[in-house]
Amino acid sequence: MTAVAPGPSRWSTAHGHVTPAGDGLLPGGFKASGVHAGIKAEGLDLGLIVSDEPATTSAARFTASSVIAAPVELCRKRTRLDAIRTIVANSGNANAATGNFGFEQAAKVQGAAGLVGGVREDQVAVASTGVIGVQLDGQTVIRGLTRANDELRRDGAEDFANAIRTTDAFPKTACVDVGLPSGKVRLTAQAKGAGMIQPGFATMLCFVQTDAALAPETADLLLGVCVKRSFERISVDGQLSTNDTAILQCSGSSDVQVAPESEDELRFGEALDAVLRDLALLMVRDGEGAARVGRVVVRGGEAIAAERAARAVANSPLVKTALHGGDPNWGRIAQAVGAALPSTEQLRLDIAIEGIPVCRGGAATRFDLGELQRAVTRDEVEYEVTLPGEGAETEVFFSDLGHGYVTINADYTT
Amino acid sequence: MTAVAPGPSRWSTAHGHVTPAGDGLLPGGFKASGVHAGIKAEGLDLGLIVSDEPATTSAARFTASSVIAAPVELCRKRTRLDAIRTIVANSGNANAATGNFGFEQAAKVQGAAGLVGGVREDQVAVASTGVIGVQLDGQTVIRGLTRANDELRRDGAEDFANAIRTTDAFPKTACVDVGLPSGKVRLTAQAKGAGMIQPGFATMLCFVQTDAALAPETADLLLGVCVKRSFERISVDGQLSTNDTAILQCSGSSDVQVAPESEDELRFGEALDAVLRDLALLMVRDGEGAARVGRVVVRGGEAIAAERAARAVANSPLVKTALHGGDPNWGRIAQAVGAALPSTEQLRLDIAIEGIPVCRGGAATRFDLGELQRAVTRDEVEYEVTLPGEGAETEVFFSDLGHGYVTINADYTT
Repeated sequence: MTAVAPGPSRWSTAHGHVTPAGDGLLPGGFKASGVHAGIKAEGLDLGLIVSDEPATTSAARFTASSVIAAPVELCRKRTRLDAIRTIVANSGNANAATGNFGFEQAAKVQGAAGLVGGVREDQVAVASTGVIGVQLDGQTVIRGLTRANDELRRDGAEDFANAIRTTDAFPKTACVDVGLPSGKVRLTAQAKGAGMIQPGFATMLCFVQTDAALAPETADLLLGVCVKRSFERISVDGQLSTNDTAILQCSGSSDVQVAPESEDELRFGEALDAVLRDLALLMVRDGEGAARVGRVVVRGGEAIAAERAARAVANSPLVKTALHGGDPNWGRIAQAVGAALPSTEQLRLDIAIEGIPVCRGGAATRFDLGELQRAVTRDEVEYEVTLPGEGAETEVFFSDLGHGYVTINADYTT
Repeated sequence: MTAVAPGPSRWSTAHGHVTPAGDGLLPGGFKASGVHAGIKAEGLDLGLIVSDEPATTSAARFTASSVIAAPVELCRKRTRLDAIRTIVANSGNANAATGNFGFEQAAKVQGAAGLVGGVREDQVAVASTGVIGVQLDGQTVIRGLTRANDELRRDGAEDFANAIRTTDAFPKTACVDVGLPSGKVRLTAQAKGAGMIQPGFATMLCFVQTDAALAPETADLLLGVCVKRSFERISVDGQLSTNDTAILQCSGSSDVQVAPESEDELRFGEALDAVLRDLALLMVRDGEGAARVGRVVVRGGEAIAAERAARAVANSPLVKTALHGGDPNWGRIAQAVGAALPSTEQLRLDIAIEGIPVCRGGAATRFDLGELQRAVTRDEVEYEVTLPGEGAETEVFFSDLGHGYVTINADYTT
């Protein structure tokens, strides 16, 4: 029933000091679980992560949307975001557009999780994902919490990851050991996301744990930078969610200190960056109904123009259906960039697909159509756009648009 | 083979002085034709419109894209936009991203059309639609031009409209008589557009003819205003084209003068507005693979916020698939608006669908689900969003996103 996550992407980042850990165990200090609480008709729908270390530090990022899910509002208002020990996350209901009643349910869940785990209420973060605009029954969640607390264990990350899935075809986890100058630490993460995906900063849910010791400011800095380079560079459907949450927890139980501006910080940051980038790529690969992943790289011009052009390509339904169909129709790339950068002056852009130049100085150039056709039917397709002038460089990863997306989203209902 | 355009929309505007003309004839002074020139493998692909009146006035609007099709660049640089007598329009090739060679082909076509019709070259406008990035053979067009010129006639508008179709399921034409205080005039129009549709001002091709006499400044003013209220308010897939062109030609052969700031101007403007609005609605109804049309009205807040919110709803693939599926999932409306208006403050918006309130002050409200389900499966669905505060009001018409769009766009290739 559970599809397996695909292998690594060509766009993954490899580091010699970051190695996959086969045992899949959470870092020291952490336990997790996933149970069926009854929010969904069947399957795991409630996940719990707890750090036993009272000195755990943390950092968090939330959606930029102004239609703010109750759990996000609760975390911002009532959680010490620099000292989160417990995370309660449910799928099957986003608890968004649910008003005061929804906020109260989130608050009840927070209080109950604190009580059950013996953790201060303001050190509990709550996250939800699922349908918007339907009231969540806090009591259902709370009944599930007791069982989830009983089932907490070091190897519970997989159950947790499964409990936060909605339309995800496979659970998204990472588990790596990181060799720092000051010692070895572990980094694990669980994420969900397949639709309603385009980061206004971090889209979706992502929870990261480490047994390294980081000051809250260091955790916040590193999470902020890495989120910008991973979840902020992907799009499934251009849709920022109401519930996006990314949390990094550092138990410190390894006694390895990651001090500000140290070599440890640099190496730890690289590992976090690689892990979040891989999870972001998994989200795109799991884009609802998606068959292929595209990467658009825009070089040249001003930063704001490059960003607009990259987003326009990544979110163009014409580019996405062409990617789906294995269609070498590069004119849609040109059209998307031109529309994003309005002007009465002709834009002299270059376009290459999988390294094959197809457009130079704004005009079609000769290429081997057979070669291009073969290139665009691979699993991952890279589009390079060069704007006139020196300057910016940016990338966006995106999924294609196929019948699966329509089927999932025309039928997935309240 | 040619599907018939659907009947009038509930969102059409009716005026007592604007009546459909059953004979379908072009206004006095105009003739048109459509032929198969061989740009497409089969079917009509070259249209010609000519005004016999040397004093014909005109106005034009073009795409805001910076990837500018050769015919648009040619019109801007080498056509007297206030005195267009001849229009040559082809389908099957957009002549966009074709560089200097493409520009030369457009220039050759312009010259040949002037020669064949005995019209000054700078009074010929050229328009193209079809695939981007493929060179157009000017000779093929020119060979077709002679035949098109031989076939010009008063009842040629339908052939012309068919000749400019690409993925359009039906030709889009209008033919009305307009009772002005100074006399009766006729207004006809031919348009195409089904995909790559979101006006940066006018998307697609649209040609309008009248036998009223308008000064070029009056024609320009009225065309500008009416384009803003019609083609600028629709979206099929959020994609601005490289070739968008809208041209109004006024032969003056009725001898009815439409003077600036007169009652005639007001009435004529109303008629033009109604005709362009109907054609815009036809484009949305013919949205590639579309089954239903939505209208989102946003009220309240500042103009820029209302515009962003309306576009976000109209272009959300989640809203569009829900519209396709007849799914009352209003949470996607809330999500789209929230994403468009980022803030850490909760947005207290109201949402109603077909007059049924579903969200008040940002929170779900009770409604009759059965009633809502029935309402969202009709052909046209209206969404009303109210933002906090007095102020703006705007509307966007949009098509749904169904399997047909994926099929058309994953397979429609270079």
